[in-house]
Amino acid sequence: MTAYDDLMGFQRQTEALSQVAGRLGWDQETMMPKGAAEQRGEEIGAMEEVLHARRTAPELGDWLAAIDDTALDEVGRAQMRLIRRDYARRVRVPGKLAARIARVTSVAYGKWADARANEDFAGFAPVLAEIVALRREEGAHIADGGDVYDAMLDGYEPGATGAQIAEMFDALRPGLVALRSAVLDRREPSQVRGHFDHGAQMILARKVAEVFGYDFHRGRIDKAVHPFSSGSGADVRITTRTAAEDPFNCIYSTIHEVGHATYEQGIDPAYGLSPLGQGVSLGVHESQSRIYENQLGRSRAFCHWLYGQMRDAFGDLGVRNEEAFYKAVNRVHRGYIRTEADEVQYNLHIMLRFDLERDMAAGKLEVADLEEAWNARFAQDFGYPVDKPSNGVLQDVHWAAGLMGYFPTYALGNVYAGCLYRAMLDGVPGLDDQLAMGDLSGATGWLRDNLQQHGGLYAPREVVERACGFAPSEVPLLGYLEYKFADLYGL
Amino acid sequence: MTAYDDLMGFQRQTEALSQVAGRLGWDQETMMPKGAAEQRGEEIGAMEEVLHARRTAPELGDWLAAIDDTALDEVGRAQMRLIRRDYARRVRVPGKLAARIARVTSVAYGKWADARANEDFAGFAPVLAEIVALRREEGAHIADGGDVYDAMLDGYEPGATGAQIAEMFDALRPGLVALRSAVLDRREPSQVRGHFDHGAQMILARKVAEVFGYDFHRGRIDKAVHPFSSGSGADVRITTRTAAEDPFNCIYSTIHEVGHATYEQGIDPAYGLSPLGQGVSLGVHESQSRIYENQLGRSRAFCHWLYGQMRDAFGDLGVRNEEAFYKAVNRVHRGYIRTEADEVQYNLHIMLRFDLERDMAAGKLEVADLEEAWNARFAQDFGYPVDKPSNGVLQDVHWAAGLMGYFPTYALGNVYAGCLYRAMLDGVPGLDDQLAMGDLSGATGWLRDNLQQHGGLYAPREVVERACGFAPSEVPLLGYLEYKFADLYGL
Repeated sequence: MTAYDDLMGFQRQTEALSQVAGRLGWDQETMMPKGAAEQRGEEIGAMEEVLHARRTAPELGDWLAAIDDTALDEVGRAQMRLIRRDYARRVRVPGKLAARIARVTSVAYGKWADARANEDFAGFAPVLAEIVALRREEGAHIADGGDVYDAMLDGYEPGATGAQIAEMFDALRPGLVALRSAVLDRREPSQVRGHFDHGAQMILARKVAEVFGYDFHRGRIDKAVHPFSSGSGADVRITTRTAAEDPFNCIYSTIHEVGHATYEQGIDPAYGLSPLGQGVSLGVHESQSRIYENQLGRSRAFCHWLYGQMRDAFGDLGVRNEEAFYKAVNRVHRGYIRTEADEVQYNLHIMLRFDLERDMAAGKLEVADLEEAWNARFAQDFGYPVDKPSNGVLQDVHWAAGLMGYFPTYALGNVYAGCLYRAMLDGVPGLDDQLAMGDLSGATGWLRDNLQQHGGLYAPREVVERACGFAPSEVPLLGYLEYKFADLYGL
Repeated sequence: MTAYDDLMGFQRQTEALSQVAGRLGWDQETMMPKGAAEQRGEEIGAMEEVLHARRTAPELGDWLAAIDDTALDEVGRAQMRLIRRDYARRVRVPGKLAARIARVTSVAYGKWADARANEDFAGFAPVLAEIVALRREEGAHIADGGDVYDAMLDGYEPGATGAQIAEMFDALRPGLVALRSAVLDRREPSQVRGHFDHGAQMILARKVAEVFGYDFHRGRIDKAVHPFSSGSGADVRITTRTAAEDPFNCIYSTIHEVGHATYEQGIDPAYGLSPLGQGVSLGVHESQSRIYENQLGRSRAFCHWLYGQMRDAFGDLGVRNEEAFYKAVNRVHRGYIRTEADEVQYNLHIMLRFDLERDMAAGKLEVADLEEAWNARFAQDFGYPVDKPSNGVLQDVHWAAGLMGYFPTYALGNVYAGCLYRAMLDGVPGLDDQLAMGDLSGATGWLRDNLQQHGGLYAPREVVERACGFAPSEVPLLGYLEYKFADLYGL
């Protein structure tokens, strides 16, 4: 046994424990009895401590010092790159600081929920200020002299920098703002109406999941308040939700989570329970969920197929034909909430958050001034004012959970999805004909072969570039949106 | 912080991790996608290693050396008694031996299942011989000069000895054999017949669980191939099964598991996530499941109530009236399988296993001679010969799983249940009137107040004796069975 073998055996157990910890979260949202919440908190805390101890274990440092990466093959070198990176990030953070962050964020959730219910940002600001201060302190430790926000971002999107993302977003914004204005001046398309039985929605959700390539032999679907995908390797579970009046909530939540889940399921099984055996970054992960949900799932061809499926499942949908259905699916409408936004406006929500949190990380924006900054920027980008904090600065839980540097990965995912779709159109001849028949095997197969299978083998930007054959940029996404919505709205 | 506080903090995390590990088993039997079996094995193995490391950790030894139990209160002394006992048992077993036992028993399950399917005991005997040898070696380490079988037994029923149980069983056997012969000569009572919808069975199972005091706020019920109860504290889950032709399978499996689960739920919440916070032994646990299932659930009064419930749920049951229904529930019939046995014959199945495994542990019986010994003993106690290994020596998985000293706790549970029922008749005036109305609150309340709440505070035999007010013996059980079945069969 070499040091590398020992290390990989140790990592294998850590990854297995990490899967167990993740499944506790799944259970909590789907199966857990209500009265078990407090005990569950202790169970999760105990698992986190075990995992933290393993991920900062002194023997890990010894192995890393002993191993010569250049003597390994490509896969071995990639494993070492991920292990070294994670270890370096973790050991730079003092244990007391990590514990304090865990403590503060664990109580912040309740305070954020209260503040949102009471439309009271001022009541939440002191807690948020403490979180931002702690995260900045942590970021400074990790950055080790470099940029604090980049250090935060790197935790979710290895290799990305704030400057690079700002450049991309700045190039994207004007086009989106212009498109938003042009579209919102038009008459709203009709919406679907009908009786959408919960059970029938779940049956259709299962069918759609299967059509998109989700493997139920290695997964399952349940209901949860907030849809999510959970797990890696041979046990990747998704959740969805149903709303009696809005069948698209269930269908497109399912397709989105199926995108995340098929990515995990599509990774080379040889990487199972190793650092390479999971999606390489949040941005690349989101590119899979978004291309499934939007470029494929909201395409004209797929919507025509879905129209037939939904007529079979629910009867009359209150729209004239499949083309009216396609328009209803892609309806652009005024709104305040990121998670309810359409393809045109979604990235504007993200850019706003990115700029604000980057300024907070740099010490240029105080939490006390955050609400005002949010509202000013929202009016500028969206063309109408925020009406209340729950529709503005208090709408998302991320900052309350201590997540800084996380938001931009959503829009980065959209940018990557735009690039991948551009390449897929060349790589999958007759794609639209397939989608019109509810056949996603060409699209899913192309993504698996060109991107998903690699897991963590290549850096995030690199794996997208390899799949596309060109350097990722915002250009394909913007072109796709302008073309699609000009066509939809007769611009 | 004293050493005791440190120790209890450490134990609290260990117990939390143990709950997580246990829930992996629940998930595996109820929710896990089929394709995840292999990965799950690694997850469970990783959790077991974490738990083993904590339970044999050197700092545990340091704390145990530093703490003066006499300076603690009653609860503290009881906690220390359990921690010291568990630690002493574990550190006596060499790590390599423990690992070898884990390895051999993990492959033995498949070989046992194959042997059972092929009716081939000889094919399984070599594996079983290895398991028995390893367990004897382990038992010798734990016994440290004492009796090997007692050391095995003590792992499941602290304080019990083979000699004590043998004496009790020897006193019980003649009465049971006589009762069996007398009853099996009589005409068989009628059986229920009807259409037992799976969904309706589950609805009734939920109702019956609630009636027996199971708290769904801290638990849930699902289907599994083999019913079980899982978890302690605020998250105690049960499973049951349904068979289209046999509604009693579902109802009485549910009541049995509810007995286990309400025991866990009835423990003083102050003991949560501590060594005291779970049922004190397998025998006492089984006493709760058995008194719920048999003395209460198969009583005339409760059966009369259940008859009405089942008529409401399923319509005609094919029996004349509630009295015929009561007789059908308590039908004594020929059979080979322990898990399908009635109250009269069940303990005979256990005694056979107890004597055989005790002889194997003592080196008086070789595995090669086990099948012959089983068949001879079966004919003697049951009055008819075993027809095939799957109905004989290969029917139970326990020995293949390395469980020696486990079987007698089932019968010990019946004996304890007999004692507790005797005491409950005095402690709960009007018990039968309550049962006849489907009101179990008096019975469950009595058990909670007198036994369940104490968790691990008292030794197993002691907690039963405290609840009953007399020293446990086989006399009440035998008296109960003789009276009940003489009445049922008109002896």
